[in-house]
Amino acid sequence: MDSIIKKICDGDVRSASRLIRDIEDKLPDAKAKIKKLYAHTGKSFIIGITGAPGAGKSTLTDALITELRKHHKTIGVLAVDPTSPFTGGAILGDRIRMQRHAEDSGVFIRSLATRGALGGLSGAAGNAIHVMEAMGKDIIIVETVGIGQQEIDIVNHAHSVVVVLVPGMGDEIQTMKAGLMEIADVFVVNKANRAGAKQLQMELSSMLNLSPKTADGWKPPVVMVGDAFEPGGFAENIAQMAKSIDEHHIYLRQSGKFKERLQRKAMAEIKEALAACLLEPVLHSLIESGELEKYSEKIKNRKADPYSVAEEITEKFFQKRSKT
Amino acid sequence: MDSIIKKICDGDVRSASRLIRDIEDKLPDAKAKIKKLYAHTGKSFIIGITGAPGAGKSTLTDALITELRKHHKTIGVLAVDPTSPFTGGAILGDRIRMQRHAEDSGVFIRSLATRGALGGLSGAAGNAIHVMEAMGKDIIIVETVGIGQQEIDIVNHAHSVVVVLVPGMGDEIQTMKAGLMEIADVFVVNKANRAGAKQLQMELSSMLNLSPKTADGWKPPVVMVGDAFEPGGFAENIAQMAKSIDEHHIYLRQSGKFKERLQRKAMAEIKEALAACLLEPVLHSLIESGELEKYSEKIKNRKADPYSVAEEITEKFFQKRSKT
Repeated sequence: MDSIIKKICDGDVRSASRLIRDIEDKLPDAKAKIKKLYAHTGKSFIIGITGAPGAGKSTLTDALITELRKHHKTIGVLAVDPTSPFTGGAILGDRIRMQRHAEDSGVFIRSLATRGALGGLSGAAGNAIHVMEAMGKDIIIVETVGIGQQEIDIVNHAHSVVVVLVPGMGDEIQTMKAGLMEIADVFVVNKANRAGAKQLQMELSSMLNLSPKTADGWKPPVVMVGDAFEPGGFAENIAQMAKSIDEHHIYLRQSGKFKERLQRKAMAEIKEALAACLLEPVLHSLIESGELEKYSEKIKNRKADPYSVAEEITEKFFQKRSKT
Repeated sequence: MDSIIKKICDGDVRSASRLIRDIEDKLPDAKAKIKKLYAHTGKSFIIGITGAPGAGKSTLTDALITELRKHHKTIGVLAVDPTSPFTGGAILGDRIRMQRHAEDSGVFIRSLATRGALGGLSGAAGNAIHVMEAMGKDIIIVETVGIGQQEIDIVNHAHSVVVVLVPGMGDEIQTMKAGLMEIADVFVVNKANRAGAKQLQMELSSMLNLSPKTADGWKPPVVMVGDAFEPGGFAENIAQMAKSIDEHHIYLRQSGKFKERLQRKAMAEIKEALAACLLEPVLHSLIESGELEKYSEKIKNRKADPYSVAEEITEKFFQKRSKT
C-alpha cells in the first residue's frame, strides 16, 4: 500500500489534509490516490446539512459535534463554501466558531472552496468525504453554505440530509420549501424562539402530511431549536436533532432504503468522475492552447454559434485521440 | 429562414415560449434551432440580478420593469428557479407578482426550472436569453433565486450584474460579501429602512474602497431601496437603481470593457455547449442502456472506484465512436 494511503487509513491528519488540499487544487496525482483509497471507504455514516444563508448551520454543526462526541463517535466535518472561487479560501467564520474542537483528536474539520469547472465542487466534496471515510471517522458531516442545485448535488453524497430553516426569511424561502421537502430527511427550525417559528412548524407539518414521500414509511421530523444564547432548551434541542438523525439512520438500515441511498451516491460519483475524465481534459487543453479565446472571438462576432464550435472541438478531440 | 426562427425574430410570443420550453425539456431539436437563431442575437443589454433568498429580488425586478417601460424599452425577463427539479415548475410567487405586466406586449416574462444534468441550468438560461435577444428585446433581466456557484454561472451570461443585499441576514451573508464583491457591478441594499441598513452600506463602501476591482475605473455604486410598502422614496430609489445600471452600461461601452464581458459570455457559452455535446450524450446512453445502474452496483460494493469506471466508460465511448 502507498505510504500516504496507509497513513490516511491510520488516521494521520497531515496526510489527510494534504490529499484534501490536492483534491481541491485538482492536482492530477490526487485522482490516482483516490482510486487507491476507494477500497477503504464506505463505513462512515454521512450527514448532509443544508439550508439558506443565515440559517445558522455552522452553529448547529458545532453543537452537533459536541453532542456526538458525548457518545464517543469520531467525526469528520467538511464545510463547503460556494463563493470562495473569488476569495480563494475557506470560511473563516466557520473555522473560528468550530475552533474549540481543534484540540480534540476525535474531530477532523476541513473547509472546501470552489475551484473552477463544471460539477467540480460537488466532485471535490465527494472525494474529501472519501478521505475522511478512509481515516475511519464514524460520522461525517457535510455542511454547505448556500442554497441551489449545487448544494443539492453535494448533499447527494450524504446518507441523511438535514434541512435548516429559520422563521421570517420571506417568500422565496416559502417557494423553496417544496424543493427542500424532497431532499430533507430531518427538518430543523432554528431560532425557534423568534416570531413565526410556530407557523413555520405548522406549515412544514401540513406539507409533510400531503407529501407522497412520507407514504413510504419515513416522515421527516421537524425539530425546533431555540437560540443558542437564550437560556433553556438548546442542549436538549440539539440532542433531539441528533436523535432524529440517528432514527433516520436506523430506518434506512431496517427498511433496506440504505442501499437505495448508496446507489444514488454511486451514480453521483460516476457522473462527477465522468466530468473529470471526459470534459475537463478537453477544456484544459482548449485553455492551454489559447483555442478557447480564439473560439470565443468567433462567437462574440457571431461568426459561429456555441454548439457548432462545441461540435468542432469534440470532433477534433476524437481525431487527435484516435491518432494516438 | 425556418418559419419558427422567423416568427421569433418577428417577436412572436407563442413561438418564443415554445422554444424556451423545448430548451428546458432538452428536446434534441432545440439545439438545432438555437444554432440558427444565434446570428440574430447580440443586440440586447442583459442585466443579471442575484442575491440571497428573501432579499426581495422579484419585487425589485417588478419595479425595474415599470421604470424601464417609462423609457419605452422592450423587456425580456427570465426568472431562474434552482429548486424546481423537485417541484418541476416555475416560481408561482414571482409570476403572480409580475402579473400586472402580463397585458403589456412590451414585456415578455418566462421562468426556467432545473432539469437534470451538470451545468444544465446555466446553459438553458443562456439559450433562453438568446431567444429573447432574437425577439428584439432592448433589455433582458435574468433573475436568479438562490446564491452559489450556479447563480454565478448564470449571471456570467449578463453584461451588468446587480447584487441585492438586505440588512440583518446573519454572519454567512457577511462572509459571502467578499465573493459577491467580485461579481457585482451595482449593489442594492433593499429594505433600507430596516435596522442595520446604514451599517451594511458603510461596510460595503469600505470594502469597495479596498477592492482592487474599483481601481480599473468602475466603482460599484450602493443604491439604497426602502420598503415598497412604506411611503416616500421607493420610486425614486428604483429610478436611481435603473440609472446606476445605465451608467454602468455606458462605462462598459466607453472603456472598451464591454468587449471583455462579451468574451467572458462567449467562453461560458462554449463550456456549456461542450457539456451538452460531449458529456450529456454519454450520460444519456448510460442511463438508457441500464449501464449506469450496473456500474453503480459495482461501486456500491467497492468492486471498482468511480474514476476507473469513468475511464472505462470513456474508453468504450471512444471505441464505439471510431467504429461508426
